[in-house]
Amino acid sequence: MKINSITMDLHAEELIRMALKEDISSEDVSTNSVMPESVRGTVDLIAKQDGVICGLPVFEKVFRLLGDDIEIVFYAADGDDVKAGQKLACMTGDIRVLLSGERVALNYLQRMSGIATYTRTVAKLLEGSGTKLLDTRKTTPNNRIFEKYAVTVGGGHNHRYNLSDGVMLKDNHIGAAGGITKAVEMARDYASFVRKIEVETEDLDMVREAVEAGADIIMLDNMDHDTIAEALRIIDGKAETECSGNVTKENVAALRDLGVDYISSGALTHSAGCLDISMKNLHPVAE
Amino acid sequence: MKINSITMDLHAEELIRMALKEDISSEDVSTNSVMPESVRGTVDLIAKQDGVICGLPVFEKVFRLLGDDIEIVFYAADGDDVKAGQKLACMTGDIRVLLSGERVALNYLQRMSGIATYTRTVAKLLEGSGTKLLDTRKTTPNNRIFEKYAVTVGGGHNHRYNLSDGVMLKDNHIGAAGGITKAVEMARDYASFVRKIEVETEDLDMVREAVEAGADIIMLDNMDHDTIAEALRIIDGKAETECSGNVTKENVAALRDLGVDYISSGALTHSAGCLDISMKNLHPVAE
Amino acid sequence: MKINSITMDLHAEELIRMALKEDISSEDVSTNSVMPESVRGTVDLIAKQDGVICGLPVFEKVFRLLGDDIEIVFYAADGDDVKAGQKLACMTGDIRVLLSGERVALNYLQRMSGIATYTRTVAKLLEGSGTKLLDTRKTTPNNRIFEKYAVTVGGGHNHRYNLSDGVMLKDNHIGAAGGITKAVEMARDYASFVRKIEVETEDLDMVREAVEAGADIIMLDNMDHDTIAEALRIIDGKAETECSGNVTKENVAALRDLGVDYISSGALTHSAGCLDISMKNLHPVAE
Amino acid sequence: MKINSITMDLHAEELIRMALKEDISSEDVSTNSVMPESVRGTVDLIAKQDGVICGLPVFEKVFRLLGDDIEIVFYAADGDDVKAGQKLACMTGDIRVLLSGERVALNYLQRMSGIATYTRTVAKLLEGSGTKLLDTRKTTPNNRIFEKYAVTVGGGHNHRYNLSDGVMLKDNHIGAAGGITKAVEMARDYASFVRKIEVETEDLDMVREAVEAGADIIMLDNMDHDTIAEALRIIDGKAETECSGNVTKENVAALRDLGVDYISSGALTHSAGCLDISMKNLHPVAE
Amino acid sequence: MKINSITMDLHAEELIRMALKEDISSEDVSTNSVMPESVRGTVDLIAKQDGVICGLPVFEKVFRLLGDDIEIVFYAADGDDVKAGQKLACMTGDIRVLLSGERVALNYLQRMSGIATYTRTVAKLLEGSGTKLLDTRKTTPNNRIFEKYAVTVGGGHNHRYNLSDGVMLKDNHIGAAGGITKAVEMARDYASFVRKIEVETEDLDMVREAVEAGADIIMLDNMDHDTIAEALRIIDGKAETECSGNVTKENVAALRDLGVDYISSGALTHSAGCLDISMKNLHPVAE
Amino acid sequence: MKINSITMDLHAEELIRMALKEDISSEDVSTNSVMPESVRGTVDLIAKQDGVICGLPVFEKVFRLLGDDIEIVFYAADGDDVKAGQKLACMTGDIRVLLSGERVALNYLQRMSGIATYTRTVAKLLEGSGTKLLDTRKTTPNNRIFEKYAVTVGGGHNHRYNLSDGVMLKDNHIGAAGGITKAVEMARDYASFVRKIEVETEDLDMVREAVEAGADIIMLDNMDHDTIAEALRIIDGKAETECSGNVTKENVAALRDLGVDYISSGALTHSAGCLDISMKNLHPVAE
Repeated sequence: MKINSITMDLHAEELIRMALKEDISSEDVSTNSVMPESVRGTVDLIAKQDGVICGLPVFEKVFRLLGDDIEIVFYAADGDDVKAGQKLACMTGDIRVLLSGERVALNYLQRMSGIATYTRTVAKLLEGSGTKLLDTRKTTPNNRIFEKYAVTVGGGHNHRYNLSDGVMLKDNHIGAAGGITKAVEMARDYASFVRKIEVETEDLDMVREAVEAGADIIMLDNMDHDTIAEALRIIDGKAETECSGNVTKENVAALRDLGVDYISSGALTHSAGCLDISMKNLHPVAE
Repeated sequence: MKINSITMDLHAEELIRMALKEDISSEDVSTNSVMPESVRGTVDLIAKQDGVICGLPVFEKVFRLLGDDIEIVFYAADGDDVKAGQKLACMTGDIRVLLSGERVALNYLQRMSGIATYTRTVAKLLEGSGTKLLDTRKTTPNNRIFEKYAVTVGGGHNHRYNLSDGVMLKDNHIGAAGGITKAVEMARDYASFVRKIEVETEDLDMVREAVEAGADIIMLDNMDHDTIAEALRIIDGKAETECSGNVTKENVAALRDLGVDYISSGALTHSAGCLDISMKNLHPVAE
Repeated sequence: MKINSITMDLHAEELIRMALKEDISSEDVSTNSVMPESVRGTVDLIAKQDGVICGLPVFEKVFRLLGDDIEIVFYAADGDDVKAGQKLACMTGDIRVLLSGERVALNYLQRMSGIATYTRTVAKLLEGSGTKLLDTRKTTPNNRIFEKYAVTVGGGHNHRYNLSDGVMLKDNHIGAAGGITKAVEMARDYASFVRKIEVETEDLDMVREAVEAGADIIMLDNMDHDTIAEALRIIDGKAETECSGNVTKENVAALRDLGVDYISSGALTHSAGCLDISMKNLHPVAE
Repeated sequence: MKINSITMDLHAEELIRMALKEDISSEDVSTNSVMPESVRGTVDLIAKQDGVICGLPVFEKVFRLLGDDIEIVFYAADGDDVKAGQKLACMTGDIRVLLSGERVALNYLQRMSGIATYTRTVAKLLEGSGTKLLDTRKTTPNNRIFEKYAVTVGGGHNHRYNLSDGVMLKDNHIGAAGGITKAVEMARDYASFVRKIEVETEDLDMVREAVEAGADIIMLDNMDHDTIAEALRIIDGKAETECSGNVTKENVAALRDLGVDYISSGALTHSAGCLDISMKNLHPVAE
Repeated sequence: MKINSITMDLHAEELIRMALKEDISSEDVSTNSVMPESVRGTVDLIAKQDGVICGLPVFEKVFRLLGDDIEIVFYAADGDDVKAGQKLACMTGDIRVLLSGERVALNYLQRMSGIATYTRTVAKLLEGSGTKLLDTRKTTPNNRIFEKYAVTVGGGHNHRYNLSDGVMLKDNHIGAAGGITKAVEMARDYASFVRKIEVETEDLDMVREAVEAGADIIMLDNMDHDTIAEALRIIDGKAETECSGNVTKENVAALRDLGVDYISSGALTHSAGCLDISMKNLHPVAE
Repeated sequence: MKINSITMDLHAEELIRMALKEDISSEDVSTNSVMPESVRGTVDLIAKQDGVICGLPVFEKVFRLLGDDIEIVFYAADGDDVKAGQKLACMTGDIRVLLSGERVALNYLQRMSGIATYTRTVAKLLEGSGTKLLDTRKTTPNNRIFEKYAVTVGGGHNHRYNLSDGVMLKDNHIGAAGGITKAVEMARDYASFVRKIEVETEDLDMVREAVEAGADIIMLDNMDHDTIAEALRIIDGKAETECSGNVTKENVAALRDLGVDYISSGALTHSAGCLDISMKNLHPVAE
């Protein structure tokens, strides 16, 4: 997932504008009280913690939606490791725009950087193992596009984007179909042939049936280390494999020796926290 | 902040529908593969961690937006302390609706419950001190209504909702006006008279000037314990007082003896994490 | 309330575009009949009545939404007293844009100027009295942002913007709470602490109870001159005071000696009428 | 223009919901402070001035958008002459809904009734003359549907709805085409053949040319009584005729003897004012 | 119907953006896989069939919505007869924009050109007959603005745009009113006087009654050649006449001798097919 | 692609409402002229051509969006082969709703049935061959959901839904990457692992390279019969295969012996035409 100009214009911008309207439902009353007229000013963007910076184009877009003549110079780019105290950008424009957009811009930037930072930490624990780290659909409502992007910036990979663009057959799908074999067959017939069929399994019997049914991907859900190892022996390269179940930076290392293709972690997006970043040294400048 | 039927219908529903469209951009391909027709089923909502439950009306609305005939029985209400393993609700309806809405419904419920849980933890540390706990505007974009509500469910109070409905004069507002006295006067003249004027101070000189300027609320930003104590002596009841600056559950107790009116904490919304809750035991029922 | 670039871009522009779509649901068929191609023209904006001009940035925005290359020179600014016959602006651009936008642009400008004009008339009758003139929520649906702005341009002040950003406890709120004291206490606990609590009173007993309850603002609703005077004696500076009830330019002067802090008038927005302004002398120009 | 269920559902409802969101940008903080739970209550709708009532279905829709279980009994219908003090409706439902919707509901009802009342006054002055009264496009932005409907309720007729559904050739269209004859011909060729062609004339030469050009309707703009009379002699039934130009209830009677087919008046919508109506006697009821 | 800058900005752009979001619900994953950075490229637009080109401004707008710096040189204009192999335009810009917009841009262009081409074929069969060719409301949902424009580009004329801007009294309207005379009278009273009244007739009795009722336009629906001829004798210039009923390019010539004023054909928009056009020779260019 | 209640509520309904607003921009003036009050009526839906019916739930939704109390009895279901003259449904409700919704409802139904009919014709020509028929992205803007559904009703299968949910590497992607091998590798790394990688090939060299690169699907674009046969020999089951290039019902049979897995045809959606269906026998009924 990338947020290039196309995705920014078609999707992200609308969400960012909504976030601005959430924070400014009529006017910024504090700023309008003391600044009846435009005054040009400059402000620095400073990291206050070490981490991976992510969301700078979103940060910039927030201000561009509020005023035309913002100039911004970036000293870092999405994906960079930054240090506490490091200056990330310097921005010049109507001070009212700088003040009114600050909170929304930082809310995006801090959250996205928090996710990128957390993801990189986890991804590093898998480095060299051949196992790739995946996100999930456990994203904050109406922020998926930003959060999935942040995962890739942090070195993770994206699982399916949503329910419409990937097939994952769970317990209840399998029950409704009358077994894994039948479920895979129905999905193979119904879904666009460009989609792989993934089956979520909870024990080794299910794994065996999934292999026989010709699943493209087999998810090993909440299995212990030995069961996973046995499952991988059963699968033996006949399907791609994904491990899932409360994977965090605290426990992921225990999975790195298994040789599973993918490990997915909801924590990347739902428990990453924020990276502390702030706007500092705002002051007027001569025009 | 309450999410009663009015706020739900005017504001929350639109956001929830957007979240559903984010997760189902055309159809739920897995479910539609194996369930060509409606089959009625029932499912339980189970807490998997101890915490404060919050967001049940939002959880319910997710499914109602996908189908008309959902029946739901709640065994808990927003604000209840729940235990791991506790059954929170039982829901019956078209299994396709139950499956397709699950992720979005849980994404809301887990996040809101995480915030309520964290807030209650922090609020308890202030219990009996006479100091109230406040949230901030550091909310997730396009989720403020849900997160501010969760703070109140957890026992916190809401600071201003956004830039349009409260006056907070910061460093740069004060600079633009030419001093605290002038800034307060300009805000008093410009802003609706139903708003109190809050001034953010960074040192004791600013505190003194804010008192003299007649600020209604004085925020003591990032001051250490002794400075806060001195500031409160200077203010001496002439204004309401708010402490802020990286307040978390780890450090809030150190502030409880000061007698400040309010302590605000961005962590309530940006670092609360999720409460683990899941939908279990989905199975078809005879109609 | 100001309509600067931020409020214009986030809120006003969307309403203006909707108004244009209301007037041009597919195309301007008259103009398209006779002008298949762009022809550049110039037109004057002329006041046809004396009054206070208001809404020029909105007027301009209407045309900018229809075409990129409009040039406009203003000879007056919002808040100016203008005279019948006075030229307010000269605009040059694609004649089709000038013709197609004319009605919507004038509908905004005439209404906003009507409100500013009426407000200034009423505000002048209070000049020197120390009493400030307030608007109300009796605005035209989907025009509040424009009408509240026009009130300030005319020299009035804004009461709360809407139900979400101010507390006003009326008869029924008081009844539901079980008395003024209880109602104020509940509001103090529930509402963000940045809001003042206003209590609407209908007789002197209510006034006394409101004072005791510690209301920040006491509204004296529909009281006669002597009752208001007595109420002010009772309040004696312990709360801010607001008079309301069918205040118009015909009767406001009778209230100026009372020393009330604020007088609110729904007539400012619901009965102000329009100021007659028109676009004249449209003619093609060489490019 | 009628607002039946189709127009209500497709167009009016969206505008009404927007108006509610304008007045409740997050929650009704006063009501939520004192009424944590639903309490059922009843309230009367009372006319406080004599006039023509208009907008009752819009009034009702406001409350239906906020709550499901509103019961409403009407004692009057749109178009009725009502008297000060007359009870128009009685409504029962969640008191929170009644309180939160009151202002928006009355803002619509008072404005629409003001227009219907003013229109009926003017229409009566033309009664028996054979001349019909028309509205114009001088409506409040984003309120045209409501205002055009109110005009018909008051006994007026609707001119074209907007720029897309009627052809009116003015000075500048004629100039661009190179004369009335050419302009009519171009419009006849370009516009859908279901539209009549109206030409706006400013003097008798233009009237003569419009007749020769075969205009379907000739507007006599801002002409004095004698000129209109002469124009009608020239037209002699060869086109329909419309008089316009600052027509108000004060001056319309002077035009009734002329025998013109239509008189249009912008004042019907831009200067009608409001009819005073209020919600009274709200009190809880046993369920 | 023209799509000039006004109609493009107010109406078409929103539909085009929706179409882009339909095709790019998050990102163009293929393009983003292989082109992480912007690379400038150039591509030709080539006709692959003979026909009438239509929709070039829509084609261009698609790309402008995806990127700012597209340069496009057109070698043809809407309405031109083009030949298979003819180069219609050359476009330069970010290759990612060119690739991501291609399908939506061509979907519009091919469909609109298909309609223009088909319309011109049918219109030519009526050339010299004095009978004009009309479209209908049988357009593709949410594409009317594009399809009605394409009809005029092909040499057809537009019937009413929609149900709101023209009066057509059909069987059931007549039945509800109690006869044609009554229906025409009711429409004459209700509808804006700028609309002509059209009556749809199915036999000669209805034609006679429509003439007597003073209908402005009489539609002869699904009549055979002789009946149409007889109907025209009855009407004898007292109303405009329109023939309708499964008119296609195969059968329209049989109607050209009748002297009817208008022939309407739903086939123009619902059965025209596409003109084959493609984007070719995309290759990077030095910047 | 199915349009069940979830997809209908989240996606289709909004498009259908827009289509209704396109056709009723303020009111249905003809119907409102003659039917001031609701009158209940009944009407039949009749096929006028043989074909495959498709879109009945969309047809129904159109009317439900205009009125609450529509009753509808269906005598056919989506996918049924219907005969000219066959009664498909009988609908009862407010005649105004029946009249005002008719055109939009039929525009959807006729187009969707046209696509289903055409698709079934083509699919039958492939029956028994083991080759599946696919649609493309050559759908009408803002109608993809309806058209892709219609293809499946007619017996076709859906290719990817849009650019976001499938990877197709064309000429220019390959060029940008620097060859097929590199392009496949980049896509494998970038795109979600649930997507298959499809490569579009134009000659046998490209086919060979695609096989070696490990493409999951190889599209043979615009190749002649012999080249396709040779390509299939080269691929030899190592990838799924898709044939494309101006496939229509006239030429598809020539491809059935080849043993290709999929044949895609843009004609299914862009050239299918409409199935003639109408609403007949509308008459009032006693209530």
